[in-house]
Amino acid sequence: MKLSDRLTAEGILYTDQYQLTMAQLYFRHGLHERQAEFEHFFRSYPDYGSHQAGYCINAGLAWLLDWMREAHFRDEDLEYLRHHCGQTGRRLFQDDFLKWLRTHGNFEGISMRAIPEGRVVHPNVPLVVVRGPLAMAQILETPLLNQLNYQILIATKANRIRESGRGQLLLEFGVRRAQERGAIAGARAALIGGADFTSNVGISHVLGFPPKGTHAHSMVQAFMALGEGELGAFRAYAELYPDDCLLLVDTIDTLQSGLPNAIKVFEELRRKGHRPLGIRLDSGDLAYLSIQAAKMLDAAGFSDTVIVLSNNLDELVIWQIITQIQEEAPRYGLEPDHVIRRLVFGVGTRLITSAGHAALDGVYKLVALWDHDRFVPTLKVSETPEKTLNPGHKQVWRVYDMRGKATADLLCLEDEDPSTMQELILRHPTEPAKYRILSREDVQGVETLLVEVLREGTLVYDLPPISHIRQVRQADVARLDPGVRRLVNPHAYHVSLSQKLWELKQQMIYAAKNKLD
Amino acid sequence: MKLSDRLTAEGILYTDQYQLTMAQLYFRHGLHERQAEFEHFFRSYPDYGSHQAGYCINAGLAWLLDWMREAHFRDEDLEYLRHHCGQTGRRLFQDDFLKWLRTHGNFEGISMRAIPEGRVVHPNVPLVVVRGPLAMAQILETPLLNQLNYQILIATKANRIRESGRGQLLLEFGVRRAQERGAIAGARAALIGGADFTSNVGISHVLGFPPKGTHAHSMVQAFMALGEGELGAFRAYAELYPDDCLLLVDTIDTLQSGLPNAIKVFEELRRKGHRPLGIRLDSGDLAYLSIQAAKMLDAAGFSDTVIVLSNNLDELVIWQIITQIQEEAPRYGLEPDHVIRRLVFGVGTRLITSAGHAALDGVYKLVALWDHDRFVPTLKVSETPEKTLNPGHKQVWRVYDMRGKATADLLCLEDEDPSTMQELILRHPTEPAKYRILSREDVQGVETLLVEVLREGTLVYDLPPISHIRQVRQADVARLDPGVRRLVNPHAYHVSLSQKLWELKQQMIYAAKNKLD
Repeated sequence: MKLSDRLTAEGILYTDQYQLTMAQLYFRHGLHERQAEFEHFFRSYPDYGSHQAGYCINAGLAWLLDWMREAHFRDEDLEYLRHHCGQTGRRLFQDDFLKWLRTHGNFEGISMRAIPEGRVVHPNVPLVVVRGPLAMAQILETPLLNQLNYQILIATKANRIRESGRGQLLLEFGVRRAQERGAIAGARAALIGGADFTSNVGISHVLGFPPKGTHAHSMVQAFMALGEGELGAFRAYAELYPDDCLLLVDTIDTLQSGLPNAIKVFEELRRKGHRPLGIRLDSGDLAYLSIQAAKMLDAAGFSDTVIVLSNNLDELVIWQIITQIQEEAPRYGLEPDHVIRRLVFGVGTRLITSAGHAALDGVYKLVALWDHDRFVPTLKVSETPEKTLNPGHKQVWRVYDMRGKATADLLCLEDEDPSTMQELILRHPTEPAKYRILSREDVQGVETLLVEVLREGTLVYDLPPISHIRQVRQADVARLDPGVRRLVNPHAYHVSLSQKLWELKQQMIYAAKNKLD
Repeated sequence: MKLSDRLTAEGILYTDQYQLTMAQLYFRHGLHERQAEFEHFFRSYPDYGSHQAGYCINAGLAWLLDWMREAHFRDEDLEYLRHHCGQTGRRLFQDDFLKWLRTHGNFEGISMRAIPEGRVVHPNVPLVVVRGPLAMAQILETPLLNQLNYQILIATKANRIRESGRGQLLLEFGVRRAQERGAIAGARAALIGGADFTSNVGISHVLGFPPKGTHAHSMVQAFMALGEGELGAFRAYAELYPDDCLLLVDTIDTLQSGLPNAIKVFEELRRKGHRPLGIRLDSGDLAYLSIQAAKMLDAAGFSDTVIVLSNNLDELVIWQIITQIQEEAPRYGLEPDHVIRRLVFGVGTRLITSAGHAALDGVYKLVALWDHDRFVPTLKVSETPEKTLNPGHKQVWRVYDMRGKATADLLCLEDEDPSTMQELILRHPTEPAKYRILSREDVQGVETLLVEVLREGTLVYDLPPISHIRQVRQADVARLDPGVRRLVNPHAYHVSLSQKLWELKQQMIYAAKNKLD
């Protein structure tokens, strides 16, 4: 695709067709500038097949805001819509609507509250609350979902991989297996959620991180074809990068060829006063080979070198590798921790695609609409109770127990303040018999999660750098109950409704059903 | 991300760090302009868990070529690399290399042969063969894989969904669940592989397709909040789009509310001389509801309206829906085909993410390197035999049996011509005892698959429009054995080596092993 086409494809038309037909309908009925409130939330944690996440990491907001600042209906976009025809060849979009889009087809009227990036988040909690003119808030749906869902998905997966890797260095290697340009947002989200670095040079540059990498099999093959063999390739690499010498040792045979050659070259480096960095294993039994590599490197006096592992890693594979090392290392006379502490995980495909659960089910729903003098809560009553919306203008409060662990996210109506309540009633969102009552003695503190980000199109929030977002993530993960942090079968974290919100929801369901019958 | 940052992230630095460190190493050793040949191929068909594909659809080439034409090391990219440091704070990239990149850091020296987009393709067959200066051919690896792997993956999934949907209209709805900007390439690939249209407006504009869509639940909710109800929403839609009236009927209750209201509005349209388009179902038992909807629409005289289905569809779900309709429709006095023929499938998440198998395992491997006066085949001997490369400069021939069905893809060395051979020996790539011999009487014809695309950076191939690519795909799929086309447990299509290539491979494995011992 040519650059000018890319700008078209990624601009204001980066949305679903029905957003535009609906926007025109609102325009025709004089509803287009009516204030509306939409919420973005996801319905369930990613479920990777055999194991489901117990929490997610929020991400994507800053880039969504960047996109919103630039996106607007350009003359060429309007020209395209002008020629856009329906079934009978009649124009689909009329001039008065296109004229309105020309002047008002941007996000300058949008206000937004959002949960900051890096925070732990849970299902059915509004992550972004959009308020603004109905037509533009509607058009925003698709690009908002597109930009937030994926980054949350990947930040979450990265965090799981980091947890299973016990905090050892984690590198994102997924460009080649991503959904094309999605690799870029994926790398950012991975850096937020748990990766230390990415191999992707361009996005590293943009975000101010050093990109990481070693070399590929092809380099060894090239030297082999020229008669210089694996050793020649390693020597060439060590000569050029004497202080960054990390060698891929499995092109021919890891234990018979790669490691002996690497050690030979490391010895040469040492003689010249350099410290070799380590090796990379990309095939075979990574746990067994890590132990053998550690043993051989130790014997040659390189016990401070790292062992980078790659090849279809994810949280379960890493868990298995660590478990196997714990069991097998002693058999070879090694402390398991001595091996584990030098591991670095290079994770490609299964991080960038969130293997096992490739899309977050995030949705964007209308929750309130201005009518005459007030916001009217809207409701979509679904035949599946879980899909029935929580209506109205809300705030999200996180409740901490006396250990300082987050015990629930409580959805309240705008005018409620749990910090002043004598006791908190935490209602299950759909089941009337399920609720908890917390007294003041059970609660160490509460905090609001939604912060004001945009006020009528103006940024009123300091977008923090990735380094700060990571600190937020670390602090939030540390305040989770260990049961919620578990990789498999985590405890269910409570997302609850306040008594008042619960009652409003029941009234509205009742009214909707009665109207129907 | 700001636009200038996006240009950086998507330009020449849209690659893995190790490509740059290797390129400098080749530069340092005078190998950077040495002619090298790389192949792109995938190792196995996508395996969606319970069912594996029997073939893939090729896609992505045109956009890769667009990217290659524009990508080069800009001053700001070189400036960034100049400040790029290693472990000890020493600069990683030296001035002479950066100077070379400034003048030669583009793809003007690259020649390329490729299998055209839309063609049916199989594992281990080179889809793209890149020849050019080693350094730039190496840097190309990551962006090439990034841009081809994903489009092949999605074109393949789209074709499977089309097959299971019996050729009924297929709409791509996935923007909101894609890997961010990956949605754009995904929509293109879906259009190549089997989708008729996409809801994504921007890419539809770029590719010259009309985008498709209906309306969302939010439109109905908005009218409900204002006291005008579902009927009011439907009327408003019908009034504005009288000839494109497709109504989403499941916001409240499909059979009790949505369908009766839709029929009321359709009757009003009919009285005004318009033909309503149909309805969309987005929840519940889609097979059962399709039958009931067809029955109600028929009874009201709207038997030519379509029924659009959406909600987590994929090839198995569609198959199940069609099977269920075949079994249940007669019970309600309907011809199954009368229901099936009016179905339209709107597929989002599971198409754009290739649900069940979210990444194609495409790789890019060095197969030959120029040495003095000739290309030396290179080889990576893997401990897993399937991963051992097929060496040398090759052509791919597709062999058709006497029914005109493709029976094998035959990898030959450059100088071989199966069209002149008395008999064809088709060797299994790794197992010596497995081969087939086809005599002339068994073969209706052979054709080469790789065409010349780039000659030293110049495009020597007419990039066809999507409409042509689709015809190529349809013709190729029609020439597959029905057993290979099956959705589940397809016949294994043969990808074979010529006798000569087989012998070269064995010699090289032998030599590599002997050198090692």
